[in-house]
Amino acid sequence: MKVLVINCGSSSLKFQLIDSVTEEALATGICERIGIDGAISIKPAGKEKTKKEIPLPDHDKAVKAVLEALTEHNVVAHLDEIEAVGHRVVHGGEKFTSSVIITEEVKKAVEECNELAPLHNPANLIGIAACEAALPGVPQVGVFDTAFHQTMEPKAFLYGLPYSYYTDYKIRKYGFHGTSHKFVSQELIKAANLDPNNSKVIVCHLGGGASVTAVKNGKSIDTSMGLTPLEGLIMGTRSGDIDPSIVEFIGHKLNKSVDEVMEILNKKSGVLGLSDNVSSDFRDLNDAADAGNKLARQAIEVFCYRVAKYIGGYVAALGGLDALAFTAGLGENDHLVRELVMGYLGYLGVTLDKEKNKVRGEFEKISAADSKIGVYVIPTNEELAIARETVALVK
Amino acid sequence: MKVLVINCGSSSLKFQLIDSVTEEALATGICERIGIDGAISIKPAGKEKTKKEIPLPDHDKAVKAVLEALTEHNVVAHLDEIEAVGHRVVHGGEKFTSSVIITEEVKKAVEECNELAPLHNPANLIGIAACEAALPGVPQVGVFDTAFHQTMEPKAFLYGLPYSYYTDYKIRKYGFHGTSHKFVSQELIKAANLDPNNSKVIVCHLGGGASVTAVKNGKSIDTSMGLTPLEGLIMGTRSGDIDPSIVEFIGHKLNKSVDEVMEILNKKSGVLGLSDNVSSDFRDLNDAADAGNKLARQAIEVFCYRVAKYIGGYVAALGGLDALAFTAGLGENDHLVRELVMGYLGYLGVTLDKEKNKVRGEFEKISAADSKIGVYVIPTNEELAIARETVALVK
Repeated sequence: MKVLVINCGSSSLKFQLIDSVTEEALATGICERIGIDGAISIKPAGKEKTKKEIPLPDHDKAVKAVLEALTEHNVVAHLDEIEAVGHRVVHGGEKFTSSVIITEEVKKAVEECNELAPLHNPANLIGIAACEAALPGVPQVGVFDTAFHQTMEPKAFLYGLPYSYYTDYKIRKYGFHGTSHKFVSQELIKAANLDPNNSKVIVCHLGGGASVTAVKNGKSIDTSMGLTPLEGLIMGTRSGDIDPSIVEFIGHKLNKSVDEVMEILNKKSGVLGLSDNVSSDFRDLNDAADAGNKLARQAIEVFCYRVAKYIGGYVAALGGLDALAFTAGLGENDHLVRELVMGYLGYLGVTLDKEKNKVRGEFEKISAADSKIGVYVIPTNEELAIARETVALVK
Repeated sequence: MKVLVINCGSSSLKFQLIDSVTEEALATGICERIGIDGAISIKPAGKEKTKKEIPLPDHDKAVKAVLEALTEHNVVAHLDEIEAVGHRVVHGGEKFTSSVIITEEVKKAVEECNELAPLHNPANLIGIAACEAALPGVPQVGVFDTAFHQTMEPKAFLYGLPYSYYTDYKIRKYGFHGTSHKFVSQELIKAANLDPNNSKVIVCHLGGGASVTAVKNGKSIDTSMGLTPLEGLIMGTRSGDIDPSIVEFIGHKLNKSVDEVMEILNKKSGVLGLSDNVSSDFRDLNDAADAGNKLARQAIEVFCYRVAKYIGGYVAALGGLDALAFTAGLGENDHLVRELVMGYLGYLGVTLDKEKNKVRGEFEKISAADSKIGVYVIPTNEELAIARETVALVK
């Protein structure tokens, strides 16, 4: 089965066409600057990437452009080869505990989660509507970033707030990157040869956004992102955890509104802020640190220390640890981050194989032969995960 | 030496007169409703507590009332028996890494920390001035809640914020309860027969305010409170850690200013909020839980789970754990909280002695004989700690 995977943002639309049998991407691409001017890039498997500027006034036109590009580049001969569409949907609130076939009712329920993800969910719904218009009769599936974490217990998802804020306003920890955490934790359980129903693993999804998840017997029991993706680890530009009083303190100090402070916490903070604006990208930070920039080095250390503390906290939540995985941009590619984080885990019997830790972007077991706990680099593949979820529902 | 220990709030003044040789409190008491109407309570050692309503228009009058009460009840024959005064000062910023004899310069430096603790530091300074006026020539010592934590490294005290917020506005983690964490960690190191220079211990100070501190070789390396005492654990009425976005979310949802949201996070949250206003007091929560109140029971579970996660995180920060202590109101008296927290620590080889865990308010080793890590109840005594610090500086 050929599955079109769509990840729709407010002015962009990423796509992949995946063959569910070989699990290969037949083409990948992106529509950009939707509603502004417009451009589409496509890279069919085994061929060069091409980019074309075309008017994309809305998402309907973008979806049409994607379908045209797929036929134009002979990725498919006929559009009816596309048997299903899988959509990434950011926020499923408490309504969605797994992926679902999209119906009118589902769209309404997603819309009801809009206020929990005001930048993302409306764009996801627009993408769904555009695909329904362009591919009538083709089943569409919603795959939620939050769904995997819906197995968390109240002790993990409740904040220390008035209980009515949870019942009336749905303020609780949801967690994100769920598609990645589910995919990687399943791969990790296989790689470490664990019993899926008797396993305690932790996945560190470290990218521009970053989160850690504790997975017990295949189920998420805790995760570092919260009501929004701001909570938890220090990220590229996001602060992660801070004393909530700082929101007030900064607001008064800089005479800024709470919305302006939130903008700072989301866009100007994280390792970008800590490094005094060297970069939000760890490749730049590593280069700067190597060249002697102390704040860049320090930003990396603060980042890794917090990852280690989250791992330690989740080992307590899990009551032990069988295996650990690093994934996503940083987790797959930055050996220094992995080495620094693992340096804190000696008390668990974790030891590093420095040579194997040189791996970039590929599966590798990076713990040493004598390590009591297997530590792995496992590339994430959210599009493949979405395709798998889609196929499971439509076939 | 007889040391008067003063803990001055905006409308109250707690005092103890301590004999530094026997380390006994010769009298304890409190002035209340200062600036409103006024009342003084005093309990000389071995005698009944007495309470008297007298006008206390300001802190000068309150200090005079304390001194009069001490002579009136024959706690001292002459005021010149009081050889030193030790003051609790909440916030020493980065200026104070230990207790100091109070000078004009010190007072100025404390005042410069006022904006970091606007409710507490000004009151502490008023108390100092009142004692200087009433006991001229008697040395006064400032003992800071923050000082013990000044050994934290940048990786522990920096937030993921623009670096200039630290350099320009001193926004960083300071931590509180330092006098208690120092006192209890020292007692713990002795009790567990550890080498002070080669020890990894954690202190859980669990009271109405609550914090956990990681102490390595006698020095604080991390602690759960932050810029203010709002961060970290869920407390009686304080939220502790939340997604910072929640400040904005609640503000918009309830149409409240950031200051009003902060008031909610400080006064209406914590286990009080989580239990839907059953109580901020764990005795009430336990009673309600026993009577079948599910939210009360859940609030206790959420509280303990977060304590356990902090312990786990700090075990990673320390690279292992030699001993653990519970202290303060809850830590010393609530066997259920201790049992639930320790229930998460089996992976460290911690086992509980259920019988010994029945202890209330006294020193006890509550881990079982086969426990790999010694766990203790150690009553804190901040006043004695302040007296010790004071004597060390003035003698």
